[in-house]
Amino acid sequence: MSNSEFEELFQKVCNWGKWGPDDEKGTLNYIKPEFISRAAALVRSGRSVSMSRPINTRSSVGNPNPAIHHMTMGYDLNLSDSQPQFVSDYLGCECHGDAHSHFDALCHVAYNGKLYNGKPLSTVNTQGAKFMDINVSANGIVGRGVLLDIPRLRGVKWLEPGEYVTTRDLEEAERSEGVRLGEGDIFVFRTGHYRRLQELGPWDPDYSGEGTAGLHPTTMILLHERKVSAFLPDGDGDTVPMNVQGVRYPIHALQISSMGMACGDSLQLEDVARVCEELKRWEFMVVVAPLRLQGGTGSLVNPIAIF
Amino acid sequence: MSNSEFEELFQKVCNWGKWGPDDEKGTLNYIKPEFISRAAALVRSGRSVSMSRPINTRSSVGNPNPAIHHMTMGYDLNLSDSQPQFVSDYLGCECHGDAHSHFDALCHVAYNGKLYNGKPLSTVNTQGAKFMDINVSANGIVGRGVLLDIPRLRGVKWLEPGEYVTTRDLEEAERSEGVRLGEGDIFVFRTGHYRRLQELGPWDPDYSGEGTAGLHPTTMILLHERKVSAFLPDGDGDTVPMNVQGVRYPIHALQISSMGMACGDSLQLEDVARVCEELKRWEFMVVVAPLRLQGGTGSLVNPIAIF
Amino acid sequence: MSNSEFEELFQKVCNWGKWGPDDEKGTLNYIKPEFISRAAALVRSGRSVSMSRPINTRSSVGNPNPAIHHMTMGYDLNLSDSQPQFVSDYLGCECHGDAHSHFDALCHVAYNGKLYNGKPLSTVNTQGAKFMDINVSANGIVGRGVLLDIPRLRGVKWLEPGEYVTTRDLEEAERSEGVRLGEGDIFVFRTGHYRRLQELGPWDPDYSGEGTAGLHPTTMILLHERKVSAFLPDGDGDTVPMNVQGVRYPIHALQISSMGMACGDSLQLEDVARVCEELKRWEFMVVVAPLRLQGGTGSLVNPIAIF
Amino acid sequence: MSNSEFEELFQKVCNWGKWGPDDEKGTLNYIKPEFISRAAALVRSGRSVSMSRPINTRSSVGNPNPAIHHMTMGYDLNLSDSQPQFVSDYLGCECHGDAHSHFDALCHVAYNGKLYNGKPLSTVNTQGAKFMDINVSANGIVGRGVLLDIPRLRGVKWLEPGEYVTTRDLEEAERSEGVRLGEGDIFVFRTGHYRRLQELGPWDPDYSGEGTAGLHPTTMILLHERKVSAFLPDGDGDTVPMNVQGVRYPIHALQISSMGMACGDSLQLEDVARVCEELKRWEFMVVVAPLRLQGGTGSLVNPIAIF
Repeated sequence: MSNSEFEELFQKVCNWGKWGPDDEKGTLNYIKPEFISRAAALVRSGRSVSMSRPINTRSSVGNPNPAIHHMTMGYDLNLSDSQPQFVSDYLGCECHGDAHSHFDALCHVAYNGKLYNGKPLSTVNTQGAKFMDINVSANGIVGRGVLLDIPRLRGVKWLEPGEYVTTRDLEEAERSEGVRLGEGDIFVFRTGHYRRLQELGPWDPDYSGEGTAGLHPTTMILLHERKVSAFLPDGDGDTVPMNVQGVRYPIHALQISSMGMACGDSLQLEDVARVCEELKRWEFMVVVAPLRLQGGTGSLVNPIAIF
Repeated sequence: MSNSEFEELFQKVCNWGKWGPDDEKGTLNYIKPEFISRAAALVRSGRSVSMSRPINTRSSVGNPNPAIHHMTMGYDLNLSDSQPQFVSDYLGCECHGDAHSHFDALCHVAYNGKLYNGKPLSTVNTQGAKFMDINVSANGIVGRGVLLDIPRLRGVKWLEPGEYVTTRDLEEAERSEGVRLGEGDIFVFRTGHYRRLQELGPWDPDYSGEGTAGLHPTTMILLHERKVSAFLPDGDGDTVPMNVQGVRYPIHALQISSMGMACGDSLQLEDVARVCEELKRWEFMVVVAPLRLQGGTGSLVNPIAIF
Repeated sequence: MSNSEFEELFQKVCNWGKWGPDDEKGTLNYIKPEFISRAAALVRSGRSVSMSRPINTRSSVGNPNPAIHHMTMGYDLNLSDSQPQFVSDYLGCECHGDAHSHFDALCHVAYNGKLYNGKPLSTVNTQGAKFMDINVSANGIVGRGVLLDIPRLRGVKWLEPGEYVTTRDLEEAERSEGVRLGEGDIFVFRTGHYRRLQELGPWDPDYSGEGTAGLHPTTMILLHERKVSAFLPDGDGDTVPMNVQGVRYPIHALQISSMGMACGDSLQLEDVARVCEELKRWEFMVVVAPLRLQGGTGSLVNPIAIF
Repeated sequence: MSNSEFEELFQKVCNWGKWGPDDEKGTLNYIKPEFISRAAALVRSGRSVSMSRPINTRSSVGNPNPAIHHMTMGYDLNLSDSQPQFVSDYLGCECHGDAHSHFDALCHVAYNGKLYNGKPLSTVNTQGAKFMDINVSANGIVGRGVLLDIPRLRGVKWLEPGEYVTTRDLEEAERSEGVRLGEGDIFVFRTGHYRRLQELGPWDPDYSGEGTAGLHPTTMILLHERKVSAFLPDGDGDTVPMNVQGVRYPIHALQISSMGMACGDSLQLEDVARVCEELKRWEFMVVVAPLRLQGGTGSLVNPIAIF
């Protein structure tokens, strides 16, 4: 894809100004209260499923910034004569990367020197983001999740690094599962990334390594037209490498900078895919609850699917 | 309360062995799938509300272990010629304490040298907990939340440090709100702690300071009889100081060690109380999604109430 | 002091260009090899003394960013059948502030949009400093230390916050101690800050609080004329508050931005003062060994005085 | 080596009780004041050299726990109208491992359930070490350093992983360099580890990987007889793998648990070796200044050699 084709695509799906010049919520604006009620109405079997990976404290080629988890108080202390005793711990972690399930704030990505809605880069400094931080989603992202399970569609265990998914694939997955992504929906996108990780071990998912399976940039048109509100992939959505002139991670640029779409990253969709298969339905209630980190560019999350 | 009276209370509400010798879920066992569906059916107005405080990076008398939030990559870099640009950050935080909204794993509290279900202290070491870690709640805690709003009942802005709430108070709050805590319910308990914090500034909520408003130990009988599954207070549930011979934090001992109850800590219930008042209903769907920290004794959380 | 008087002072003591346009060492250039040998010749009694405070993990009004110290492995593990066993820990700490003994890199302070030697602010970004980082002092700062002990001169336990020290005071301290600050010397400057801390407990040493005892800006002329190479104070050198129009922390601006002087901060000089008194000599060998943190703006240090 | 031969060796070099039942300093007791003066007298050319590696923030097979270095304040802020401006950063790091130059406290290693001097394991808990912490060396380790440069002796760039050095090698290195390790000396031991790292890139220095070059356990007899006070190796002293029945890291057990020897770890000795070669002398003054971390099991350090 040439750079000018990409620019055209960027404009085509762009939501700048759509919800006013000061909007910080982007496509989350698509979620109307009635959609939340409708999503809750999908809860019939009373099962809830994590869409998060375990937090990873081991460094590897795919986890160069491992989380630190330290016990800060153990049962070896006798702090006072009084019962009870307590233990405590500490967690430190980079909020992004390819190893931890997290959620991106809209301030996380800029394109051509601008953030979503045309905000300048200077709204983010070493003390954090003044606008479009992760705290914008403080009240949680609640809605109907629709899983499009591409490995299921293709009859494979997972997509290989570098494989990409087209609009046609997404539409076929919809047909095959009997669902249709619609206004306000949360698009749960499975490539089988985490299954591959478990079976083959870590690899470098970046341009420096084998890469990742993901979406083709043109699929953003579908997401835009359907008014999808949020995106929960098991990779980060991007296909790596993707041949767009002068643009690495085009999906990030399109989703976050242009569309203002609330995006998860590095989820674990094996469990939810299994439950969908078992219940033969690929729609469910989703609740994502980012930590309330003011000024934060993202947050570790454990998104929950409820059936 | 004498120590032997406390021991008697500990035995009376004890759930050890109730769900088998290897049970790690405690009162979460009360949440049957149909309760989750019923909780979802409460979602009628499509509003979701955070029950978490903002993460607090400023040390104070009430926040001796402030979180660290560092920008790790800013828009001052030009990592490659290629678009887009990214920013990233890092969060480090103690998983317990009195300043951050968090959730306790059952391994967090021991009494008389035993954890819930009689597990030995040696199941927790400097590498974390082998049983009853926070990952037990990986799939989220989903159910009906019932807010008992004591300041509302008493016509005050908040309870003062050291004030305690009795079974009778809880029953009166139920009557006043037209709700009743029942099997599998998530008990959301408001003392107005966070409002006091916002209006008066930080204080030392511990035995070393002014203390905290909370429950009287005997209220645990009600929670036990009603088969409450989880507890979400705006303090930590305990009244400090509480006069139990040889026992500080008796509520922690009773809830976590004896009953095996899933407990939040240091929530922010001002927003949810306002919405309850507005909608004139004090029941709602609750989703708590602890981070998947294997071996962890707790997790920062942002519990979501959905109306 | 008016702003223009300050600007004049800034120019008067300015070393920009003195050691070439690419110099990153500033006044450390004054330390000639023979000065190091001469400093070593002062070692006659074979006593070494720490000039560092203990690392402080407790937050207080004077320590808003406490260090974190976590045991990461304890003797409760049995990692293998093989002997021996190991324990390990983790230290995390802000490299500056008023609570931890540390050393400043020259990139730490800018004045009027310029770093020492006229380098632009853009040489420091969210990945660290490209020039004048703490690694410039990788080989250590070694030289003759001269302690000017002002509380001793004034016959007090410590200087009170806000008290300042003039050129005349310094000269009198020299006379009283029989020493003279000269070329390449490391100026060890005691106000008794740490003794006050130990006896009275923490206070806010900043403009927001009671302040700090320190130097008067005009003392920089003496340091400049004498060709002092480095500065080791028990506060941070600055008097807070100091009445310079439009300039807070004028000493930092003068020492680091204008003179390019290697500066310690928040040392503990009680032990070294006691040894000086005992030996009746206020000169000794000094070794400061900042950690080799590439891109770092400072480092925790434990400067050693050797007699 | 059989286990009983090792036990015999452990007893042979054992210093328990030698300096009293409460001694926490071990072989540092060998450094008499006159040795410090004599070490200082070696300073003739006025050159100081770092024996530390740069702090390593990149994870690799040899650095599974990378340091974190975060800018916490940048020049993008305008905190007040007043000059000057400041930048600041944060360093977090594991105090041990194979990637960072650090110093071990005597509490770091136990053998057969005992620490040096027979202290029980219970003196170390999740709040740190009550005895023999790194703060014991608060006043620095100052003395005569003697570099035995084994690659120089053997005419190679470095020793290969798994290669070990015998007493005879040490004695030959002494002869070849014209030095002799004596009472109170700091033994600087070069295998060329860091040069190999720079030329070949990271490898796994552990039993799980290729291993490390180091000493043969029997060399401890020489160190014991010569009354060496401290040890500064570029690996960690141990040869990995080393065939001692039931004992991994026998050097750690012998040096730290049995002898109570102050040990550095993972130093960078390329620079100091170059200077020794240039000056044709392999003895120099050494100053190691561990951070004053109370309860700490070790500290990052930047040991300085002064010629």
